[in-house]
Amino acid sequence: MHKKVAVILSGCGVYDGAEVYESVITLLRLDQRGAQVQCFAPNIAQHHVINHLSGEEMPESRNVLVEAARIARGQIKDVREARAEDFDALILPGGFGAAKNLSDFASKGAHCSVQPDVLALAKAFAAAQKPVGLICIAPALAAKIYGFGVTCTIGNDADTAAVLSEMGAQHAECTVGEIIEDTQHKLVSTPAYMLAQSISEAASGINKLVDRVLELTVPQS
Amino acid sequence: MHKKVAVILSGCGVYDGAEVYESVITLLRLDQRGAQVQCFAPNIAQHHVINHLSGEEMPESRNVLVEAARIARGQIKDVREARAEDFDALILPGGFGAAKNLSDFASKGAHCSVQPDVLALAKAFAAAQKPVGLICIAPALAAKIYGFGVTCTIGNDADTAAVLSEMGAQHAECTVGEIIEDTQHKLVSTPAYMLAQSISEAASGINKLVDRVLELTVPQS
Repeated sequence: MHKKVAVILSGCGVYDGAEVYESVITLLRLDQRGAQVQCFAPNIAQHHVINHLSGEEMPESRNVLVEAARIARGQIKDVREARAEDFDALILPGGFGAAKNLSDFASKGAHCSVQPDVLALAKAFAAAQKPVGLICIAPALAAKIYGFGVTCTIGNDADTAAVLSEMGAQHAECTVGEIIEDTQHKLVSTPAYMLAQSISEAASGINKLVDRVLELTVPQS
Repeated sequence: MHKKVAVILSGCGVYDGAEVYESVITLLRLDQRGAQVQCFAPNIAQHHVINHLSGEEMPESRNVLVEAARIARGQIKDVREARAEDFDALILPGGFGAAKNLSDFASKGAHCSVQPDVLALAKAFAAAQKPVGLICIAPALAAKIYGFGVTCTIGNDADTAAVLSEMGAQHAECTVGEIIEDTQHKLVSTPAYMLAQSISEAASGINKLVDRVLELTVPQS
């Protein structure tokens, strides 16, 4: 049986949405390992729209689900349609979208909240002891999902790590090609573009994360 | 020495820009093979904007270069800045952007024209006998770049192949995991999402194309 994996995207583009390289590398590795994948995104307005050439904010509004559909070739659903019982694992790529659309971590730091539909889904995976993979800045959501003491990594940025600790997470330093696993919670994280200097560096850690998340799923009957 | 490869993106999203999976797979393989990559895109308005969730046209305007910057994490330049003498090879991923923004093949068929800056750059690579890789629908530009008799593939779609033949290309059928090489012109093409049923199928042909394009470059001194 194919393992079924839900992937939550947060838009399309590193500065206001899902980091595109991380998202595609995740989806490629999952497919290469034989997993069945369904992408989801919240059906909400983006926090803002960034011109990725200039870095400046653009005076327009875009929808997270509609833009994330660009990555997924239209094969994506509203995250409210996702049910943890239909899947074996959940993975969230990074990009500022995780900190601006899936949560308000980018502006609120330790006082952030997670988008309610995303939080409910992630908590359902956690409650069912199904493995979750958090990439890049997405581990900023870990304490909100798992509560006090969950172990995760965002690489080695001391300031960001301190904020995660303030939220109740245990931060573990990690290099770009490695993963950190919280065995109790079946949570796997990797720094990706928190540290990566190239797309293949990002791929090295993400591929390990995908492989480990799939290993942690309960064998299919 | 690292081989230097220019990649032309045509936006961000299969229906109105560059196919995201094809673009990222190309960039990943090039980096894994040690190539130095610079992305380019024409600094022009997109032909139109498609909602990738619904498939419907959206009443707005987007710039090809600005949107392509989403894929490339901002590391992209106006195609007018590209000079063939600075690179060893050129690769164009597919997506409707190749047929709507880099050319008007999608609406004009055999009577299409190629965006002047893109055409000038591609012709300069051809004139310098430097290898070019065309992915998915991008081989629709081959006859405009190389003239009568150039051999390429868009997979096995008879109608599209007939239009390419009308333009002067020799179409060769090809499966998704293979490439077609015109040895005289150093042109390599692969069907990717003209045929792919999955992202890993697309990757199988694109990886072969990237590897072959790099092999065809003149050894660096």
